[in-house]
Amino acid sequence: ELCDSLLSDDRDRPLRGARLVVSAGPTREALDPVRFISNRSSGKMGYALAAAAARAGAQVTLVSGPVALPTPPGLERIDVETAADMHAAVMALMGEADIYIGAAAVADYRPSEIAPVKLKKGRGASVIALTQNPDIVADVAALKPKPFVVGFAAETDDLENYARGKLIAKNLDMIAANWIGREDGGFDSDRNALQVYWPGGAASLAMTEKSALAEQLITLIAEHFHAKNSTKSS
Amino acid sequence: ELCDSLLSDDRDRPLRGARLVVSAGPTREALDPVRFISNRSSGKMGYALAAAAARAGAQVTLVSGPVALPTPPGLERIDVETAADMHAAVMALMGEADIYIGAAAVADYRPSEIAPVKLKKGRGASVIALTQNPDIVADVAALKPKPFVVGFAAETDDLENYARGKLIAKNLDMIAANWIGREDGGFDSDRNALQVYWPGGAASLAMTEKSALAEQLITLIAEHFHAKNSTKSS
Repeated sequence: ELCDSLLSDDRDRPLRGARLVVSAGPTREALDPVRFISNRSSGKMGYALAAAAARAGAQVTLVSGPVALPTPPGLERIDVETAADMHAAVMALMGEADIYIGAAAVADYRPSEIAPVKLKKGRGASVIALTQNPDIVADVAALKPKPFVVGFAAETDDLENYARGKLIAKNLDMIAANWIGREDGGFDSDRNALQVYWPGGAASLAMTEKSALAEQLITLIAEHFHAKNSTKSS
Repeated sequence: ELCDSLLSDDRDRPLRGARLVVSAGPTREALDPVRFISNRSSGKMGYALAAAAARAGAQVTLVSGPVALPTPPGLERIDVETAADMHAAVMALMGEADIYIGAAAVADYRPSEIAPVKLKKGRGASVIALTQNPDIVADVAALKPKPFVVGFAAETDDLENYARGKLIAKNLDMIAANWIGREDGGFDSDRNALQVYWPGGAASLAMTEKSALAEQLITLIAEHFHAKNSTKSS
């Protein structure tokens, strides 16, 4: 059985045999054939997590928005552009997934209409109407049975309250939160710090290289994933 | 005098001594600390033009929006993010410029307000109000005296009419136009084709590598720049 093979794992490859899906990068929501709404995600944290999970022995599928990063070795990558594309690609993988890490910066909203031709100055609307996008991490966490679900939160203020609120409201198993626009971390940076919350616990991962931070978070995820599975099995 | 030194130029370096400014890449217009509106420009055509102009002997300043490209050798690069930043950087260089090539995909509009904190789902507006950005190429072409001004047009339909209309309305010396979403050219591609128009003439540059296309366009620009200057001097 899967759980037995996971529990008999060695320390170096704590996710051996686990099927893990990571979503990473931004999404792009088209306004017309040229313009789009996006966000500042470089994809570096999600790619570092995918690479660290593969090194930890997981069978990794990386669902990636448009980024300028090479595919890490030893994993499968699926490229998507919009939040709707990413939602479809992730949901299609969930029947086979043990762990889902939602590290993408998914656009909350998309333009309600996509103009088929390039909008002209003075002719197009000077207002963009928006429609809410599907909430990928919440939809994954609502599955029965659900995989072990890790969400992300990036906030400019009130970090712990927003992160803990999201953990509970979306029924996540763990959430990794970071400040936007503080110190040297985040976005295009190669460094970051994370506050990690789960029901009844928390950990603080200090500012360091994203590759090292990813190793630490994957170790935490592996511990809690195995703890949850051994509880279910007992 | 500048014109004499330019006219005495050899064939290999037809822009020797000319001071040339190229703007390239997209601009990003912030909605909040995380989200922005942008467009699909990779900056490749503008960077290829800057490199070709430097090889042709011009003293090149490249004003660049956010792109994932290395700076070509032998030129100065100024990084900007928004259309307003790019407008300010370009206008500040125009007192000293002989030629301006506006190859950037400047956002026509920016959000009317930038939220100081990250907007939350269900709390932020579901409509974005937009304000028109300054028109950089038109403002450069309205200067007296003005440099030799080359604009760009990328269109999904009615290419020649839009391009010729822009040439006249904005008082440009030349405009290079390409189709969006046809054949294999444009955007992230390394290849493109251009229709080039000037008052009383046109040229068609066939689909090829952007580096080769840039050489051809720089040769056309040099011919028309010298023709215009020799007319003014006589």
